[in-house]
Amino acid sequence: MAAGRLLVRGGPLWAGPGAYWPQGAVAAEDGWITYAGPEDDAPPLEGAQVIEAGGGLIMPGLINAHCHGAMTLFRGLADDLPLDVWLNQHMFPAEARWVDEEMTRLCSLLAAAEMLLSGTTTVGDAYFCMQGAARAYEAAGMRAVLMQGLIDFPAPGAPEPAENIQVCRDFVEAWQGKSPLITPGVFAHSVYTCSPQTLEAAAELCNELSCPWHTHLAETSEEVGQTAELYQASPVAHLEELGLLARLDAAVHCVWLGPGEAELLARRGVAAVLCPESNAKLASGVADVTGLLAAGCAVGLGTDGPASNNDLNLLGEVSLRSRLAKLISGDPAALPAEAALDLALAGSAQALGLVGVVGRLQPGYACDLIVLDLDLPHLTPLYNPASHLVYAASGREVRQVVVQGRQLVKDREVLSFDVNEVMARVRELATKVRAG
Amino acid sequence: MAAGRLLVRGGPLWAGPGAYWPQGAVAAEDGWITYAGPEDDAPPLEGAQVIEAGGGLIMPGLINAHCHGAMTLFRGLADDLPLDVWLNQHMFPAEARWVDEEMTRLCSLLAAAEMLLSGTTTVGDAYFCMQGAARAYEAAGMRAVLMQGLIDFPAPGAPEPAENIQVCRDFVEAWQGKSPLITPGVFAHSVYTCSPQTLEAAAELCNELSCPWHTHLAETSEEVGQTAELYQASPVAHLEELGLLARLDAAVHCVWLGPGEAELLARRGVAAVLCPESNAKLASGVADVTGLLAAGCAVGLGTDGPASNNDLNLLGEVSLRSRLAKLISGDPAALPAEAALDLALAGSAQALGLVGVVGRLQPGYACDLIVLDLDLPHLTPLYNPASHLVYAASGREVRQVVVQGRQLVKDREVLSFDVNEVMARVRELATKVRAG
Repeated sequence: MAAGRLLVRGGPLWAGPGAYWPQGAVAAEDGWITYAGPEDDAPPLEGAQVIEAGGGLIMPGLINAHCHGAMTLFRGLADDLPLDVWLNQHMFPAEARWVDEEMTRLCSLLAAAEMLLSGTTTVGDAYFCMQGAARAYEAAGMRAVLMQGLIDFPAPGAPEPAENIQVCRDFVEAWQGKSPLITPGVFAHSVYTCSPQTLEAAAELCNELSCPWHTHLAETSEEVGQTAELYQASPVAHLEELGLLARLDAAVHCVWLGPGEAELLARRGVAAVLCPESNAKLASGVADVTGLLAAGCAVGLGTDGPASNNDLNLLGEVSLRSRLAKLISGDPAALPAEAALDLALAGSAQALGLVGVVGRLQPGYACDLIVLDLDLPHLTPLYNPASHLVYAASGREVRQVVVQGRQLVKDREVLSFDVNEVMARVRELATKVRAG
Repeated sequence: MAAGRLLVRGGPLWAGPGAYWPQGAVAAEDGWITYAGPEDDAPPLEGAQVIEAGGGLIMPGLINAHCHGAMTLFRGLADDLPLDVWLNQHMFPAEARWVDEEMTRLCSLLAAAEMLLSGTTTVGDAYFCMQGAARAYEAAGMRAVLMQGLIDFPAPGAPEPAENIQVCRDFVEAWQGKSPLITPGVFAHSVYTCSPQTLEAAAELCNELSCPWHTHLAETSEEVGQTAELYQASPVAHLEELGLLARLDAAVHCVWLGPGEAELLARRGVAAVLCPESNAKLASGVADVTGLLAAGCAVGLGTDGPASNNDLNLLGEVSLRSRLAKLISGDPAALPAEAALDLALAGSAQALGLVGVVGRLQPGYACDLIVLDLDLPHLTPLYNPASHLVYAASGREVRQVVVQGRQLVKDREVLSFDVNEVMARVRELATKVRAG
């Protein structure tokens, strides 16, 4: 994957909260960081590939802990609609008609391009027909935790709900150990679209195969109402009563938690993944991030799918999440810049089972890093890089991207695949989608 | 200013809500639009300067109805602090020490660069030492409504509060009719920092000189408490009781309005200017945009100053404002994309007294337009341009900028002044600011 030695130097280095050097460098061997610190103290690295930051900010690649990448095809197809109209009249019919493995391959490549160009190096992606998505992220060179969707309805690539769990097994078995940056897993859609039996089967499969298991949980007040009606329990309590909560790796959304449920998630080792832009656009609500953190819960960030966001730009999530934390607490000191940024680093790494691998630039971690251009009016002057990243940067300042020591973006151009061709082919497909 | 004929063509044209052509063109003579519509029907324009959109989206330039541009110098200097600590221990001392006419000229130039490069062609800027800001925006070629700050404390350029109103008069008289794109006016800081006498003097001066008058109003719950204590009235009621509300052109923030006050603002012809990013970052609250619009109030958008935002990117405000409207109403259909976008066009134009001049691309309007690159992964595919602008664009896609028929940005480069030199000089000044 990554051959030999790499040295990234020539710019300020923000390696994680509290770790900043105005002039830093990162060295790696065979994709793993061997040094991160002041440039002057960097070891000589004979024969290394050198990436010059050119005054740009060197920092860890961002980690998008939840998205549905292939839904790039449906970006902007239907907005500003009540949730049930959006889902039932637009998204579900479009998915039934257009989603297959070639679609997920092509449209996940578009997602990968967008994420790389906005600084995301690791993604947690959950959708249907995930064999296509896995081929896409492998080709792109991104680090990816890919979860095959599981739902008790006919779904793309799994027309028989009874065979859905087999589709998950096939996907995980096909990709486990196959590609060094790809981890396959299972995504149970939700407690209101998966029966207790389906959820139990998912947990069993993930135990058997030792693979990640995520689900949407407590996204809307409607979900809370439905779960109460079906199971006389909240979504979290329902999973706990089934004995499955402790097996879950990440609960996505966590907008509508009941009293004590943040603490319960923490005790059960479940990470919360928040998707603030999607939750706002769909008017689902705002998760209590400071409450989750205070309860000891790991909290990651995701973009959700581009049909409900409508982009895959993680710094936008960081910015919104920070502002919403201040707004709902009435405290401008709530969730300060470095803590907000760390949701998309250490928090997301924990949700994806990648603690100690990504989210920091320090020896022993994978060399997944980005370089952002600082020589721009909206980032001038520079007093505090974390402040700029959260309150002023747009996510489009990313200039260089490295994953596991391999340069994937050079001077804003994706090196690993032909983005123009992908865009052209998605546009062609979108013409058919629009025609209906 | 703008010599002769201009033709912009070769891309989709979004000329305002409901006015979209997949392949459009805009023609102008002497800075005023003579045609906007399908490219095929564009009149022949012999000898015209031609700007090729290259498939980019042609749309009206954005209008930032409220900022403190020169505060770019303090961008990121102090964040995540309680409001009183931020103001009293950081902002006020920094302003007292560093703000003079050369600072406002230099740092407003930086603001102009940032705004032009993110698609803002018209700005409402309120600060101290506005002669410097006026020289900056004139040099940049931006359209600007510039308001000299008025406050009952010693302020930069006006150490004697008793002479503050004279400083305002001097500024307005110096710039009225001087430069075709610059409109001078007065900005009374707030009802809690300006006595009734100061507010009356401001209104009288603006009546005498026929110039715009804005003020911060109902920004925080603390302001409401202070005004109640001082005057036994809400901020809006206080201005109404003084007989001054009808003279006010725009009330900035309007987060904490009482019952019926949106209707009162509408009846008195006062536009509300909302600054959602700043109001969130400082935890001030969320203005009720749908309530204001329903009351018949004109609603514009502003970025506020870069010390409390921390950027001057108006599309970011549009995006946040739209999402917050959906969140607080619980209705994903609230403030749909075109309506959100129009806050930064027709709404801001009304706040700045520029109705019929800017905010639309149609014959008779000034030729203030931007071209945004659409050939980007995060804007692919394209079903609906307004959706992309509000839910997916970052504001950094702007490629060409034209103000009154004059091209100010070409292929992302500012033509009217040397941005690199400005950035270098602001960095030098920031080094001194940091040293204290």
